[in-house]
Amino acid sequence: MNFTDAINNLPDKENNTLYGKSILRTWDMTDDDIAAVANGAGILKAMRDSNVSPKIFDSGIALSMFCEKDTDLKFAFASGCDLLGLTIIDMDKKLGNNAINETATVASYMADAIGVCESKFIEKSARYIKRISDAVKVSHENGVIAQKPCVLNLGSDEDSPVQTISDIRYMAERFGGTENLKGKKISITWAYSPDGTRSFAVPQGLLSLVTRYGMNVVLAAPEGMDLMPEVYERAEKNSELSGGTFTRTDSMEEAFADADIVIPMNWAPYTFLEKRTELSAANLGSYIDLLEHELRENNNNFIDWEVTEEMMEKTKDGKGLLMHDLPVDITDISCIRGEMTAQVYNANVDSLLAEAGIRPYVIAAMIILTKSEDPRAAFKTIAERATKRYF
Amino acid sequence: MNFTDAINNLPDKENNTLYGKSILRTWDMTDDDIAAVANGAGILKAMRDSNVSPKIFDSGIALSMFCEKDTDLKFAFASGCDLLGLTIIDMDKKLGNNAINETATVASYMADAIGVCESKFIEKSARYIKRISDAVKVSHENGVIAQKPCVLNLGSDEDSPVQTISDIRYMAERFGGTENLKGKKISITWAYSPDGTRSFAVPQGLLSLVTRYGMNVVLAAPEGMDLMPEVYERAEKNSELSGGTFTRTDSMEEAFADADIVIPMNWAPYTFLEKRTELSAANLGSYIDLLEHELRENNNNFIDWEVTEEMMEKTKDGKGLLMHDLPVDITDISCIRGEMTAQVYNANVDSLLAEAGIRPYVIAAMIILTKSEDPRAAFKTIAERATKRYF
Amino acid sequence: MNFTDAINNLPDKENNTLYGKSILRTWDMTDDDIAAVANGAGILKAMRDSNVSPKIFDSGIALSMFCEKDTDLKFAFASGCDLLGLTIIDMDKKLGNNAINETATVASYMADAIGVCESKFIEKSARYIKRISDAVKVSHENGVIAQKPCVLNLGSDEDSPVQTISDIRYMAERFGGTENLKGKKISITWAYSPDGTRSFAVPQGLLSLVTRYGMNVVLAAPEGMDLMPEVYERAEKNSELSGGTFTRTDSMEEAFADADIVIPMNWAPYTFLEKRTELSAANLGSYIDLLEHELRENNNNFIDWEVTEEMMEKTKDGKGLLMHDLPVDITDISCIRGEMTAQVYNANVDSLLAEAGIRPYVIAAMIILTKSEDPRAAFKTIAERATKRYF
Repeated sequence: MNFTDAINNLPDKENNTLYGKSILRTWDMTDDDIAAVANGAGILKAMRDSNVSPKIFDSGIALSMFCEKDTDLKFAFASGCDLLGLTIIDMDKKLGNNAINETATVASYMADAIGVCESKFIEKSARYIKRISDAVKVSHENGVIAQKPCVLNLGSDEDSPVQTISDIRYMAERFGGTENLKGKKISITWAYSPDGTRSFAVPQGLLSLVTRYGMNVVLAAPEGMDLMPEVYERAEKNSELSGGTFTRTDSMEEAFADADIVIPMNWAPYTFLEKRTELSAANLGSYIDLLEHELRENNNNFIDWEVTEEMMEKTKDGKGLLMHDLPVDITDISCIRGEMTAQVYNANVDSLLAEAGIRPYVIAAMIILTKSEDPRAAFKTIAERATKRYF
Repeated sequence: MNFTDAINNLPDKENNTLYGKSILRTWDMTDDDIAAVANGAGILKAMRDSNVSPKIFDSGIALSMFCEKDTDLKFAFASGCDLLGLTIIDMDKKLGNNAINETATVASYMADAIGVCESKFIEKSARYIKRISDAVKVSHENGVIAQKPCVLNLGSDEDSPVQTISDIRYMAERFGGTENLKGKKISITWAYSPDGTRSFAVPQGLLSLVTRYGMNVVLAAPEGMDLMPEVYERAEKNSELSGGTFTRTDSMEEAFADADIVIPMNWAPYTFLEKRTELSAANLGSYIDLLEHELRENNNNFIDWEVTEEMMEKTKDGKGLLMHDLPVDITDISCIRGEMTAQVYNANVDSLLAEAGIRPYVIAAMIILTKSEDPRAAFKTIAERATKRYF
Repeated sequence: MNFTDAINNLPDKENNTLYGKSILRTWDMTDDDIAAVANGAGILKAMRDSNVSPKIFDSGIALSMFCEKDTDLKFAFASGCDLLGLTIIDMDKKLGNNAINETATVASYMADAIGVCESKFIEKSARYIKRISDAVKVSHENGVIAQKPCVLNLGSDEDSPVQTISDIRYMAERFGGTENLKGKKISITWAYSPDGTRSFAVPQGLLSLVTRYGMNVVLAAPEGMDLMPEVYERAEKNSELSGGTFTRTDSMEEAFADADIVIPMNWAPYTFLEKRTELSAANLGSYIDLLEHELRENNNNFIDWEVTEEMMEKTKDGKGLLMHDLPVDITDISCIRGEMTAQVYNANVDSLLAEAGIRPYVIAAMIILTKSEDPRAAFKTIAERATKRYF
């Protein structure tokens, strides 16, 4: 990679519209914002691969707030922050405890970045992340904290921008640029997993983002496995604007047929999250177990939604690109029946792991773009300094 | 801030009486020690605010030992240590397991600082922190560990010196120097919280410290909500020596009347901690639930001990300074009825968060003062180096 | 210590046979490999003691994967990694979840070292650690991760190489070099602890290692407290090759008689781990409690296996070296009856803590030796740079 050319394409002081912002949803970002994050990630990855360290922070804290343990994005966040020199501190706060402005500020006196994953409650989850972002903004404006930490949404009920921008970057790498995505058939499809309670932030986020690139987007899901209604509307509007198409089907076969890209994954339907939110608000937590039991019972009607070798054969020239946000439930490896067979997993594992490997760099790029008034200058300094990671 | 003047007021090699010590209780510290910590914190904060990094450690570990999860001081400790370049490692040891000298030493081969919060047992808690301090001292003297880590009490049953010195610093900032605290009326008052089991380390520590500055100190609490007897004696003796007064009342109104500073907070009475310690020692842990239940029943007799706008009106010119050690239970935000109303919280939130924001710097100052033979020289080096935190 | 001479004895580019490897078992390592680790640890410790920082990583992650909380080796790993500049990230993965290559790779995009302790299942535990090592190797070879992290076994069912090489280093320090260990009587002996379920990785690892130095090795254990059968064979073969002896006894007295070194410790028998593995594989987890109960019942027949002052008197000139891998169960301190009396512990505590203090340096040496093509050059750079840890 020619660092100079790549860096000159990044925004500078005049046009960095991400400066001082949080990153909550891709539909609040311009196409240029998204390109800046994706390109920044590409440069950081190339630097790391050639052993150049992009450590720009001398000290500072990255707060890691996850509603679940050990998700992959937690490691991605830790990795991306460490790359830049931030110290990772876990924060184990429950949704709704204490005053959010107090909680967020007290943990942020030295924080430069806050990564939040909270995806269990409809509307409430996104609002929670937004309130953290607002709280630290206000505390900064009022002089209570010296720097404004950027807040990154690492998975709400609405969106998962780190995952989806990573995926756009990976597709661009595989197809030679985002401009080549135009006209490609991409299918986002539900797949069976014994768990069945997974967040739909990623399929929602993908539909909201990939429809901006003029692709022929297909969403496949069994009846009832619905996303939030506004997602369909957004996808349709985006497709119209970008010159692509958006269609829905309840047939996995149809989705895979001649597809350039397939992204299978499990999710729980919108109505489940809605009910869980209601039960939780009414302090009827013990009914949630029952609700989850019912969900799994229904889920078991769709064990055929599995990616097999035969299914992969149906894709474009039998060579469609298989993507997944990981971790993936693999038949015979992590469960009796899962989202894909062991054969399919093993045949695609390097690509799946390379896709996931972009996430730490997307996070690091988001931090630089939101924290630096002039990201182009920041990247130039890193490139000129050219600190070796270890001797 | 003029760094040169401020730094020249810090102790140097000749008079740094904190060098090599642990910080366990303010009543073991001289007035100069406390001033050095408070002033050091002020300088560090000013440096950070102007993006100068006081990172003085190239590597090294800060052990974080908390008997409770996610307290605010845990984040303050992490923040203060990160500022100086120390790596935070959590240690989840239960009181009384293994030989303390073994446990403390094995975790301390690379430790420069150990922060301990253990406040649940009367006498035992303070003794536990002291034993950790003694253990690493002996291991250092016997050549087993290369450096002596300073041990910081982040909350025992007796005292909470980080909180109280932060508060003295904050009052000094608000009133233009500790010398201006003389003659001011400060009221430390019990307030209702549905929890009811909170540690009394902070009110005890405050009474023991603010009485050293010639203030007119009032302690207000419902009947039975007593602190450890020696605290009253210490407060009286200090007041006499410093030319202030110390009075007690069971009326919140009386405490607020014409007060320059009010510090409301909830605590469990001394007798509760005494009983809990006895039950725990007798392995009658299951009776502790019952004891806590009784405590809350009694606690509920005092739900009127709430800071309202009317109550704040009673303070000096209706503009008394409201302080709190955070987190605070707020009526209608974190609970149905709490220590203060949402109106009072919202009207004072910036000040409350600014007060809490001093804690990380107090911790960092304590580490520099106990680890550096010549803190004045250490601060000068930081100021001259003037490393930017990020570019 | 003369750093130049010591460093010149380390392997260089021509003969660093550890480069690019993981460290899983000492019996896969040559005598030179082990000497390199032990000597590297000695140099790093001397550097730290004279306040020289061996921080060679500008950034990078050390993943800490422990099946148990707060073991001493967890702190040793954190300490050793921090010394080199790596950020410690805890990973709380259960054995057998997800595809191991996925789990290991996703956490390793920025990882330079992975420390794994998994010792609860016979064969499965060692295989698990090996599979993590294989997975990151493959991901590195296939270009998915930029650097190959070294995997360190911090305790499997088979071996605990960090502990055993630390012990060899400590013995060498005490007896003036490994060459002086030849002919010394060393007794590894079972000792009573109320827990009774401890891993036998350390006694197995010690028997497999100390028999390589021409020592007269005695293993003492009550009937039934057996190790894995292959360990006895390995110990015998090693002893023959090195000109030492290997004998077994069921008498602690016999083991202590005239011994130069005694290493008492508690372990559960091989057959217990075998049964636990079977029950766990058959999803009969609830029977494990029963199994552990039976084990403790039997264990209680051997409360006389305690190191007392009288027992220590039997050692060589009454001055035999007492070693232990810590934490140790001490009579009257951590339990009613334990592995040694409080008198014995107190009389030997500095030595025990000095022994344990080598572990962080052994870990750091392992990382440098496996990550640097030319460790001699790496150490020279550290020595020449001579960065002070703090001013």
